[in-house]
Amino acid sequence: MKPELSITKRIRTTPFTSRVEACGVKGYAVYNHMLLPTKFRSLEEDYWHLCEHVQVWDVSCERQVEIIGPDAERLVQLMTPRDLSRAKEGMCFYVPLCDETGAMINDPIAIKHDKSRWWLSIADTDVMLWAKGLATGYGMDVRVFEPDVCPLAVQGPKAEELTARLFGEEVRDIGFFRYKRLAFEGHEMLVTRSGWSKQGGFEIYVEDAEVGRQIWDALFDMGKDLNVGPGCPNSIERIESGLLSFGADMGYDTTPFECGLEKYVSLGADIDSLGIIALRRHKPTKKLVGVVVEEPIVTVETALYVNGQSAGEICSQVWSPRYQAHLIFAMCRLEEIAGASMIDVITTTGQKQGRITSLPFDFEELGLKG
Amino acid sequence: MKPELSITKRIRTTPFTSRVEACGVKGYAVYNHMLLPTKFRSLEEDYWHLCEHVQVWDVSCERQVEIIGPDAERLVQLMTPRDLSRAKEGMCFYVPLCDETGAMINDPIAIKHDKSRWWLSIADTDVMLWAKGLATGYGMDVRVFEPDVCPLAVQGPKAEELTARLFGEEVRDIGFFRYKRLAFEGHEMLVTRSGWSKQGGFEIYVEDAEVGRQIWDALFDMGKDLNVGPGCPNSIERIESGLLSFGADMGYDTTPFECGLEKYVSLGADIDSLGIIALRRHKPTKKLVGVVVEEPIVTVETALYVNGQSAGEICSQVWSPRYQAHLIFAMCRLEEIAGASMIDVITTTGQKQGRITSLPFDFEELGLKG
Repeated sequence: MKPELSITKRIRTTPFTSRVEACGVKGYAVYNHMLLPTKFRSLEEDYWHLCEHVQVWDVSCERQVEIIGPDAERLVQLMTPRDLSRAKEGMCFYVPLCDETGAMINDPIAIKHDKSRWWLSIADTDVMLWAKGLATGYGMDVRVFEPDVCPLAVQGPKAEELTARLFGEEVRDIGFFRYKRLAFEGHEMLVTRSGWSKQGGFEIYVEDAEVGRQIWDALFDMGKDLNVGPGCPNSIERIESGLLSFGADMGYDTTPFECGLEKYVSLGADIDSLGIIALRRHKPTKKLVGVVVEEPIVTVETALYVNGQSAGEICSQVWSPRYQAHLIFAMCRLEEIAGASMIDVITTTGQKQGRITSLPFDFEELGLKG
Repeated sequence: MKPELSITKRIRTTPFTSRVEACGVKGYAVYNHMLLPTKFRSLEEDYWHLCEHVQVWDVSCERQVEIIGPDAERLVQLMTPRDLSRAKEGMCFYVPLCDETGAMINDPIAIKHDKSRWWLSIADTDVMLWAKGLATGYGMDVRVFEPDVCPLAVQGPKAEELTARLFGEEVRDIGFFRYKRLAFEGHEMLVTRSGWSKQGGFEIYVEDAEVGRQIWDALFDMGKDLNVGPGCPNSIERIESGLLSFGADMGYDTTPFECGLEKYVSLGADIDSLGIIALRRHKPTKKLVGVVVEEPIVTVETALYVNGQSAGEICSQVWSPRYQAHLIFAMCRLEEIAGASMIDVITTTGQKQGRITSLPFDFEELGLKG
């Protein structure tokens, strides 16, 4: 018997927990002190359904950190080495947050409401506390808090059709990482084209729990012919797609250069960012890479070896039913994997060889057919 | 079937997870991004065992925030309204952390190594990020980080005997909320007389995972005749004892005065503390109180009523087998409960009356016999 999750008030339920449980949720994670569903059917059934149809996800645990006041934009820029000087209303930005050593604090989506009001839609660390500390210490004129916003994601190839049925045809004009304020039954809310899958879709920033439950029910009513179903971030899909998870694939000991986020660091920009100076001087000594083992395996150790030397650690891993390969994200020391194309993985059936590759996986180049 | 907990690298295991699982752990919570066992036998069997014998708890999730450098003490004092000016090495302090509005951020145990090195042994929020933000913003000369320290707690009436067998008779001289550095097999570590129960005991701050597992095994070997067993913070014991849980009984919307922590606020002290000015002016409008229903109940709503008006919310609750009463911690609006001695609780078997009482529960005054 697997240990159960003990749910107290400290581990928050969401406005959709009753709906999720009625759908027969089989697993939860805890994310930002809140329940995140992880499985409804099996991981693999959830995967195929996500890739073929449309799912509604309770991602309330993507909490918002609201930064409001005259210094809001200054504070957000201070927290990230990505140049936000050309940011406009209606835009969202994937931003590594970095401290003054260049080490990552989180990798949220930054949403610009206007110059004096931003949301950071965060991964699993209490960014609010860092932002509050900085604002207090620098004496900035901002207020930092967590509004009770609970995102619902609509993900999958039929997500646009379903979301358009709910909010109208305007949905189709929302660009990638852009948002519009759209109304459901007179209640206006933010709708972004985004989500933690590469199957396409939207996130609906629900600000009223009761309206949120009406939206949940309406999506299921309107989507019957689209084979809509409950879902959640799926580890097969997200690893195939190269989407990273803060706390697993990167953490406080990682710089953006070490986990493939260099394109979100504006090294040449003239910005007032805590991490930028350290990042300009930074020489990475490790790197997040992909490892592919072309057979089903159960890994025994998280350490990976080159010539008998420990060369890195497994961060995330999953069996891909589409590519018939075991896919691994691994943080490897550059010195140890220099020149190596293969790496040793210790499994229940002995030592196996994995191919080292860059991320995101290029399955065509790897000769893997989906 | 209850949903299982999905454990990824983001939800950290501890040096003792293999031991805990070998002991048949039945439930986990997630606390500071880490596994916290919640049940071994049944909640009630765990309770009686804790009150009668001695248990070893994996409380690795009580993470340490280390603050080191010339400004360490200044930063710690800034974070709490409790006067630390007379703090000495060897002492621990239960400290509410408060922001500049007086609102709580966490309620850690502060441990003074020396003037330039403190640990905050934290409840479930990322205090490290707040401390880092403040240190950066104020330009303080400190380093803030999370050392890999994994506390083991030894709790129960036989805890002193068992801990003395491990570390020697010196253990018996450690005062309440005091610590000594003691050695096990040549490895020195911090041992405090503390723990999240009122049954007495110690916390061992393990800094080396392998040594920690040796200590775990030694405690079980040496404690056979004491009926030593695995355990964990027990909600029956902690609610009977009036111990609070950050995130359940108090949170970012609570001041120390609202949850009975006024004795840890040094209102008259001349200290440089972020929250102290706001707290001097603070007029609480709500209060954490106890509610006692003298029969087994299953609560339906978390709202509590006085004269049909919602008067507060249930924070924590448990059936006490010792006192044969359902015990509730509730955050109530002072205006609504003024003059009231009873409050209405909605249960599966209808509306029940609960007695309102101060915390911690005074069972003798309540006429409840243990």
